[in-house]
Amino acid sequence: MLPRWKGKAAKAKAFADPMSKIVSELQSSLVQSEAHALLSGCSALLAVESEQTDLLNRACFGRAIATTEKEKQWFQLSMEEAFYLCHSLKCLKIKVGEDNCPKNDEELWDYMKSKKEKFPLFYKAYSHLRNKNWVVRSGSQYGVDFVAYCHHPSLVHSQYAVLVLSEGDDGDNANQRLREWSDIHCTIRLCGSVAKTLLVLNINKNGQVTVSPSCLEGYAVEERTIMRWSPQQCREDQTVVENGIK
Amino acid sequence: MLPRWKGKAAKAKAFADPMSKIVSELQSSLVQSEAHALLSGCSALLAVESEQTDLLNRACFGRAIATTEKEKQWFQLSMEEAFYLCHSLKCLKIKVGEDNCPKNDEELWDYMKSKKEKFPLFYKAYSHLRNKNWVVRSGSQYGVDFVAYCHHPSLVHSQYAVLVLSEGDDGDNANQRLREWSDIHCTIRLCGSVAKTLLVLNINKNGQVTVSPSCLEGYAVEERTIMRWSPQQCREDQTVVENGIK
Repeated sequence: MLPRWKGKAAKAKAFADPMSKIVSELQSSLVQSEAHALLSGCSALLAVESEQTDLLNRACFGRAIATTEKEKQWFQLSMEEAFYLCHSLKCLKIKVGEDNCPKNDEELWDYMKSKKEKFPLFYKAYSHLRNKNWVVRSGSQYGVDFVAYCHHPSLVHSQYAVLVLSEGDDGDNANQRLREWSDIHCTIRLCGSVAKTLLVLNINKNGQVTVSPSCLEGYAVEERTIMRWSPQQCREDQTVVENGIK
Repeated sequence: MLPRWKGKAAKAKAFADPMSKIVSELQSSLVQSEAHALLSGCSALLAVESEQTDLLNRACFGRAIATTEKEKQWFQLSMEEAFYLCHSLKCLKIKVGEDNCPKNDEELWDYMKSKKEKFPLFYKAYSHLRNKNWVVRSGSQYGVDFVAYCHHPSLVHSQYAVLVLSEGDDGDNANQRLREWSDIHCTIRLCGSVAKTLLVLNINKNGQVTVSPSCLEGYAVEERTIMRWSPQQCREDQTVVENGIK
């Protein structure tokens, strides 16, 4: 399934302004301003000024929160987003509560694991896609873990519905999806009805233990798309097959 | 959600001809003719003449199979359907292969468990709904275990999408559905888009072991419907709430 752009102008706009460039600009800006976020439950709060508000919106990190403060705009970042800006892009420091000293990556890793058991797997999936310049947002609306857009959601519909599974791991840490045929049928039918392709990211932990974020380097990610095979369509409509190969 | 009849005439036709009566007629007819079916893989094959063809179609058991035989019509029954006619309605005998002696309930139970590990749970759910005069068919098209109709599918759309779970049982015999929020979101969204209510049948085995069909009497079935709660709709549209209570 090809990306569904929201009009020709949207496609042209996206090609003229690649996501990699926008994220780089955000990274430089946050580094320069020594940005700090505050952990709060399962998210991190970040206050920024107008230029960074624009960059966060364009790079599609977090959600702007309405407050009475006029000079600052607050953003609520998911744990994956916050850790990506902190650990992967190294452009954000994160504090907890009244403690003025930012937490290091290991402390954040422990905090996030304690809030969300599957954080290591979900973060690996999130960072894997973000590193390839996909825009990654929550997939809860579609009953999946994430949705992936090839550019900003204002320009294109999300192309992939993403489920994060763990290869060869039946432990509590794994995502218990697609273990029943009925679940596979349900997920594929829903993805089809919202014109998305189901992308399964199988994370192979390669025996790594999750004590520190360094285990992420040892994780391998295997990508699989799952689609309904319609004999009639595949036999008679060659254009569908050709588009599928692209 | 109220039943969605396929027109007013369909509703009147259904009320004039209750499903309980049709099933009783089928039962008497099969008893009288000493009907025998033949087990074949995960289904049972039954050859009937025109009167019983009509009754099986009206009671919605099995699927008619096209063959070259003119006098007999073959029906393919699912394992749940075959065992229900045999064990619960006691109107069908079932043979295996060349053996001319019909199998008893215990032998059939063992056969069906060997073909489908979750058969005891699925059969309990199937018979529970059939005993209450619901028409029960496969739900694979909607990513659930069964769909339930309040009368024949030609007169009414299926009202419930049914998932069979096993309470307090994490063993291999349980159905691994709805264990993740993303699966719950996926299932509810799909049910909503096809105008069905999600009905979860929780089977509590009460410590019964599945060695013989007599364990079924000890199983308890707990019914739960799961619906999306929309604050706006529930606050402003009283009619929706009232319909929901009925």
